[in-house]
Amino acid sequence: MGKGVIANLNKEIPADKRVMITFGGGSVKNNGVYDQVKEALKDYDTVEFWGIEPNPSIETLRKAIELGKEKKVDFLLAVGGGSVIDGTKLISAGLLYDGDAWDLLLTHQSAIDTVPLGTVLTLPATGSEMNNGAVISRHETKEKYAFFSNFPVFSILDPEVTFTLPPHQVACGLVDTFVHTVEQYMTTPGQSRLMDRWAEGILQTLVEIAPKIRENQNDYQLMADFMLSATMALNGFTSMGVSQDWATHMIGHELTALHGLSHGHTLAIVYPATLRILREAKGDKLIQYGERVWNITSGTRDERIDAAIAHTEEFFRSLGLTTRLCEEKIGLETIDEIERRFNARNAAYGENANVTAAMAKTILNSCLKEF
Amino acid sequence: MGKGVIANLNKEIPADKRVMITFGGGSVKNNGVYDQVKEALKDYDTVEFWGIEPNPSIETLRKAIELGKEKKVDFLLAVGGGSVIDGTKLISAGLLYDGDAWDLLLTHQSAIDTVPLGTVLTLPATGSEMNNGAVISRHETKEKYAFFSNFPVFSILDPEVTFTLPPHQVACGLVDTFVHTVEQYMTTPGQSRLMDRWAEGILQTLVEIAPKIRENQNDYQLMADFMLSATMALNGFTSMGVSQDWATHMIGHELTALHGLSHGHTLAIVYPATLRILREAKGDKLIQYGERVWNITSGTRDERIDAAIAHTEEFFRSLGLTTRLCEEKIGLETIDEIERRFNARNAAYGENANVTAAMAKTILNSCLKEF
Repeated sequence: MGKGVIANLNKEIPADKRVMITFGGGSVKNNGVYDQVKEALKDYDTVEFWGIEPNPSIETLRKAIELGKEKKVDFLLAVGGGSVIDGTKLISAGLLYDGDAWDLLLTHQSAIDTVPLGTVLTLPATGSEMNNGAVISRHETKEKYAFFSNFPVFSILDPEVTFTLPPHQVACGLVDTFVHTVEQYMTTPGQSRLMDRWAEGILQTLVEIAPKIRENQNDYQLMADFMLSATMALNGFTSMGVSQDWATHMIGHELTALHGLSHGHTLAIVYPATLRILREAKGDKLIQYGERVWNITSGTRDERIDAAIAHTEEFFRSLGLTTRLCEEKIGLETIDEIERRFNARNAAYGENANVTAAMAKTILNSCLKEF
Repeated sequence: MGKGVIANLNKEIPADKRVMITFGGGSVKNNGVYDQVKEALKDYDTVEFWGIEPNPSIETLRKAIELGKEKKVDFLLAVGGGSVIDGTKLISAGLLYDGDAWDLLLTHQSAIDTVPLGTVLTLPATGSEMNNGAVISRHETKEKYAFFSNFPVFSILDPEVTFTLPPHQVACGLVDTFVHTVEQYMTTPGQSRLMDRWAEGILQTLVEIAPKIRENQNDYQLMADFMLSATMALNGFTSMGVSQDWATHMIGHELTALHGLSHGHTLAIVYPATLRILREAKGDKLIQYGERVWNITSGTRDERIDAAIAHTEEFFRSLGLTTRLCEEKIGLETIDEIERRFNARNAAYGENANVTAAMAKTILNSCLKEF
């Protein structure tokens, strides 16, 4: 991590590797990242694959796997945000798998063989650069599933590449980082004082930097703080010995699958509703969070919980995102479909395994009405 | 990390390994750890080496290396605190080195070949269980130097093994954890909001748990919080992208080398003095620390700095440790010797490289007088 570190790529990839470089839609050609990568790898045998889309689809990834097999690549370099990296994780397994890569989403994944994968991160958000998870979509059936296999063998993070990101993507990245953190924090209190402090440290950092980033996205230190926070929010450092939630993510994935909403945006809609509905079970932690992150130190228990939830939703709105389904013209039909899907898989998400189909419906109903 | 995890040892060490188990003075025979380790490794070919002392000496480690070479061991298991683990790191390099292992302290160390090493930690303090550093002493010359080579391939932490530790060792471990954290924090402000928060998170945790531990050392959650904090305080997680100090450690090592004081205890003496003398250079960070860790929110700049330093020294004293040289009957002669040693090596420690022999003398003079 640092200024100009993309130039170090050739120290990370063995010289004899045949590298497939994977990209998204082309923004890296405008911000200089593509030129830096090509310059750093000028002595390597490389193949390029373009067009891994937001919420990477199996349909696209199959083409990349076909190309990679044909060119006999033995190293992958993902240059992009979480979608490019996630997609490339599936490619890295698909290259060594004989059947259709979609099978890999449905099997026991930790034992999968993979081609080594490095990343050059361009969008702080998903944490995919330092974890072994990926989320892959299937357009044909409007499905979206998580996939767990290999960690990148390295990731290169130059905060300067974030200066030119569209503000909407930055806003979604900030929310994604925030909600990754709370999915591992807003559960049962008293499990680990230190993990609580570290999660709160990420949240305090985001709350401090977000308005400043909205004013000036070209501040190196601000964007470095954002980039480091996004990586640390989902690399296992804050989840040691504590229970985890992830219900908001599971509901949010369905909204993306059905409507194509940005992942971070779905979280901005679902998370405040999850807190409203599960306010009793999460109450003690909400009070701790309110005090330490938002300085809410007075009021009754209910008032403090109300204030903590309100601050959270207002924070997401302050980033320019909507937080209600009606604002996105999403209604009962979608809620019914998500209920149907959750029923079909006997869903029971959250730290108490009580976010069932019925509970998901209650949560989604709570974000139908206007803010 | 967890209850009963020592039983998992046989999942971590390949079955065909010939394991040398290294120990300290024998407390593990009283607290059940020895029996748990032997039970877990009952199907292995093992050799025991006993007697790695606090501040492990090259004189002792040479004997272990000789034994290990004779028995052709190809795996090391350190069962103990930081001294046993540190010493075993040198053994792991010494086993593959033909000359005298003391040479290794003086050479370029990162390229050293090593035998794989696992640990069962019994004393939270040094962080050696999750870093690649060690500190080795030479009685003959009263020298003490740092050594950097290999990380343990695994470490096993059961907080229950800490219940029977002598309170003085616990106190020293708490101070060691605290000072490891500030050596990577109390420098230049504004380098990383997140690293600041994480370092403060460790300090806040220690300040919260220390008095409770003094009351009840058998509380699992408290000791787990302590154990995790000690590991996280020196595994590189809080030092990403920030400058580091370590002057207090370098001075403290000399006090141990010359007088045999416990490492943590030397830090309790030297650190408040370092803050008193370097209060201007560290002033901005001291104010941030005072506010976030000690809730010092009013007063002039000087008053706030004074209060932050006073709280730190009082915290160390609240653990039952002395914080002044006179309390340990250490005087000018020792200070002169440390000045001489620092001059001999052109010492320039600290984040500003200004803790020279003369500055070290000033710092030590500041802890001559009574509290």
